[in-house]
Amino acid sequence: MTYCLGIITRFGLVMAADSRTNAGVDYISTYQKLFDFSYPGDRAIIMCTSGNLSMTQAVMTLIRKDLKAQDEANIHSLPNMYEIARYIGGKIRQMQEQDRAWLQKDNIDFKCSILLGGQIRGEEPGLYLIYSQGNFIQATPETPFLQIGETKYGKPILDRTLNFETPLDACAKCALLSIDSTMKSNISVGPPISMVMYETDSLAIRHKLQLRLGDPYLAKIRNWWEESLRSAFDGMPKIEWEQCLESSLENVVID
Amino acid sequence: MTYCLGIITRFGLVMAADSRTNAGVDYISTYQKLFDFSYPGDRAIIMCTSGNLSMTQAVMTLIRKDLKAQDEANIHSLPNMYEIARYIGGKIRQMQEQDRAWLQKDNIDFKCSILLGGQIRGEEPGLYLIYSQGNFIQATPETPFLQIGETKYGKPILDRTLNFETPLDACAKCALLSIDSTMKSNISVGPPISMVMYETDSLAIRHKLQLRLGDPYLAKIRNWWEESLRSAFDGMPKIEWEQCLESSLENVVID
Repeated sequence: MTYCLGIITRFGLVMAADSRTNAGVDYISTYQKLFDFSYPGDRAIIMCTSGNLSMTQAVMTLIRKDLKAQDEANIHSLPNMYEIARYIGGKIRQMQEQDRAWLQKDNIDFKCSILLGGQIRGEEPGLYLIYSQGNFIQATPETPFLQIGETKYGKPILDRTLNFETPLDACAKCALLSIDSTMKSNISVGPPISMVMYETDSLAIRHKLQLRLGDPYLAKIRNWWEESLRSAFDGMPKIEWEQCLESSLENVVID
Repeated sequence: MTYCLGIITRFGLVMAADSRTNAGVDYISTYQKLFDFSYPGDRAIIMCTSGNLSMTQAVMTLIRKDLKAQDEANIHSLPNMYEIARYIGGKIRQMQEQDRAWLQKDNIDFKCSILLGGQIRGEEPGLYLIYSQGNFIQATPETPFLQIGETKYGKPILDRTLNFETPLDACAKCALLSIDSTMKSNISVGPPISMVMYETDSLAIRHKLQLRLGDPYLAKIRNWWEESLRSAFDGMPKIEWEQCLESSLENVVID
């Protein structure tokens, strides 16, 4: 399927995505899903995409077209992140109007979701999840992360370890482990993994990472993590089983 | 929803279930989902249920009815686990024939799944997942665990830590953590947690556990686990970010 996530804290943002796309188990490909539209010194803008690939690629194409045309409304000219989220939602709606009916006819899933994260000079950083329908929600200090795609496998570690005060490097490790858990348990999510880390008010992306299949760092963190899980396991308090009185054959135990 | 799992290893079985049932977010109740039908000295039989509650309760009722009637075919008289799985599948089909059409009329989900685990004297232990359609699969050394209900949140830890040689007490800890991860991330799964551990050839359930909401042991393992995750985290190899050359305003960075 896809798995992308964004984390926002007091210190900045982390965004990460996998790259596996499939049209069934007999057609697996690799496509980039994390896009950097930053304009350093003025704004940092990162987008992650999931869902119908033709939809998301078309939305990206429309966005780039407006940028090239230096149209009045493009993601480098819009005054704040809210407007950018509305603008992207509008592009999704435009594509839905063109293509939805044709896809529905053949029961093809036309839905897509986009994560938008970044900061414009003069504003606080923001993180948004834009839906297929063009509307969106925003991450908040109470809910400092958003996920799209195959979200369930990687959610427990985020719930257990993240909050608005978590340092950025810890968020980055957390994001990697969240994606790694998902890749291990679901074959439709796969490398390369793309990740960026953004520091509040830097107005530029200074930390990028791409981990390909077989990357030694990916193997290193997976092994480290599994080793740590095993020792945490061994050190865990013994289970306090209840006393069980064993019944005889005559005294059948039925619940 | 529900979350139940069964683990089978060289040493025996662990089976565990949550207890939360809901008919929408405004109607949450507690119902037992782990049932012990053992006949000590002859057979250990454990079942865990998920899905439509009226279906699973009806199946349990039919099973108990046959036992009381001491009918020729009941789960204490059938000669092996395969036959018991077929028998339970038959009960599910019987209920589907009675109720499915009525539930479908109102778009109510009529599906259910049942985990069956145990050992009959003279056989190896076995673990089965019986589907709504009455057919079933069996766990094997390559896939030593089966899950039903809300399975995704709790799967990564099983994938990372279990194999056919894992000692039973480690399996039990793993099962508890798997359920705990699910409860933390999904509100439709909740305590009490029921768990049993079965040692191969003991032909009786000697280890039971029920953890209620607020149980100090539950809090103890959750805190221990989250502490361990945090220190594993801190000790994790630093992220090896790529060198990022920051572009000037003139040199717009577009992906």
